Amino acid sequence: MTQITIIGVGLIGGSFALGLRAAGLNVHIVGAGRSERSLERAVERGIIDTWNTSLPESVEGSDIVLLATPVGAIDRVLQEISPALAPTTIVTDAGSVKQSVIDSARQWMQHFQNFVPAHPIAGTEHSGVEAGFATLYENKRLILTPMEETSVEAVDVVSELWRATGAKLEVMEPAHHDQVFAATSHLPHMLAFSLVETLHRMDQKSPLLHHTGGGFADYTRIASSDPVMWRDVCLYNQQALLEALSEFQNGLDTLVDAIDKKDGSALEQLFATAKETRDTKVLPADSVDKMVNDDKTTEV
Amino acid sequence: MTQITIIGVGLIGGSFALGLRAAGLNVHIVGAGRSERSLERAVERGIIDTWNTSLPESVEGSDIVLLATPVGAIDRVLQEISPALAPTTIVTDAGSVKQSVIDSARQWMQHFQNFVPAHPIAGTEHSGVEAGFATLYENKRLILTPMEETSVEAVDVVSELWRATGAKLEVMEPAHHDQVFAATSHLPHMLAFSLVETLHRMDQKSPLLHHTGGGFADYTRIASSDPVMWRDVCLYNQQALLEALSEFQNGLDTLVDAIDKKDGSALEQLFATAKETRDTKVLPADSVDKMVNDDKTTEV
Repeated sequence: MTQITIIGVGLIGGSFALGLRAAGLNVHIVGAGRSERSLERAVERGIIDTWNTSLPESVEGSDIVLLATPVGAIDRVLQEISPALAPTTIVTDAGSVKQSVIDSARQWMQHFQNFVPAHPIAGTEHSGVEAGFATLYENKRLILTPMEETSVEAVDVVSELWRATGAKLEVMEPAHHDQVFAATSHLPHMLAFSLVETLHRMDQKSPLLHHTGGGFADYTRIASSDPVMWRDVCLYNQQALLEALSEFQNGLDTLVDAIDKKDGSALEQLFATAKETRDTKVLPADSVDKMVNDDKTTEV
Repeated sequence: MTQITIIGVGLIGGSFALGLRAAGLNVHIVGAGRSERSLERAVERGIIDTWNTSLPESVEGSDIVLLATPVGAIDRVLQEISPALAPTTIVTDAGSVKQSVIDSARQWMQHFQNFVPAHPIAGTEHSGVEAGFATLYENKRLILTPMEETSVEAVDVVSELWRATGAKLEVMEPAHHDQVFAATSHLPHMLAFSLVETLHRMDQKSPLLHHTGGGFADYTRIASSDPVMWRDVCLYNQQALLEALSEFQNGLDTLVDAIDKKDGSALEQLFATAKETRDTKVLPADSVDKMVNDDKTTEV
């Protein structure tokens, strides 16, 4: 039986385990983390079979280790588990940033060819052991960013597991991954967090948050995401994110300037460009998303 | 039979008509607008009974006139129809900005007490005659911003119609309405438009839009809204929107500064404040929204 260690049994790690079980895979899953209560709860939920709060002990005898912690913890975790890894143990991760994780693996892993960097493009605004569910990865993208040194066999093993959860696999170059997601995912999260934080400040001067409704709740859903995870994305994808933020700030300055000057044609042009881009180039990832989108109304 | 003229038979005006018909109200609805083809299509869809491209003629004999054009057209429409209004005709609107519309009504209407300013908090990213549907306003808020002079009877008549469409009524002071919606609705729309426009610019240097998926499509849905409507919101709610944008820019500057300095604790604090605010103070408008929200996953 394949033994898999999952370090960090929250939304991402828990859903991975539940997805494998739902696919009928015959696996023994060891959970690892800091909170005994969470690990015990993960056993109760059928996510893991056993657990160990010692990271080195948790990887002993495992064929595969999934690092499902926030990105900022991965360096320390790799340092800690590396001496305990067997030469054949495959290590993979689920971090939203890839270059920094690869750097850590290169630094700490004796058998670096066994490291398969991966990023599932799925999640919800919830986190923790209660948040995981078996269908999180169904029809969602899973991006692999293997290096030249990476063992093809290790990539195959990891790919098979993710395919079992229902994910669709893609391969990208690590630095390109980090740039693309800085713009398409990390930037939108920054805007959502910053918008809610701004309204929180404005609300303290003159209450207005009680006037927000379903549309605003929908738009700001991603601002309910895990603060530690997003702190780490900022710290570990700093350059690409700062570049995307700078591009956005320039664009917003142009918009503010047009409002200030009451330049109606500039405003209409800007909004029309955005609408056309969104209508023609931004498409739902799959039909399931599409159905949800089509049913949905948004406040204006 | 009550005769209602709807000027602008798009998403907002069309859904109002369809909502009244679905509620079984015995009404004769006259459509008015510039495009004969759209008005003919509105007859085919059962939205209106007859139509007239002459605005003054379209209001003749009507008990109620709904102005459902973009905010920027309302001043001109009121100027044009005012001489043709009977002393008892009630005029109401559906604009996202209230103070400027009230100013226009005060300037042009001989019987200003018959003007009932209103704002339905509902919509989709679609626009035009095909976009309307009967249930758009069901369980959505309808905000009335009557003035001291406004006839109580006129408010009652307009309220009854909106209640028939399923809307929940609220009353606000016009200037307060414009400030609140600048922050909670107009600002988020500016950010969505600006984000998509930014990614469009970045995409031209190095393609990345094809990597966006359902989560990004979901987050940017409001950037597909009508460019003319939003141009007008910018022009007619300029001051309140500039203030909200300035507050946001200050907040974003703080965030960018923390990323630049790799200040992990400042970042975590900012995200935690946003998360707590969103989790505790931003609530879905109603249970229908809540159900949709709870079913929904978002990319991270």
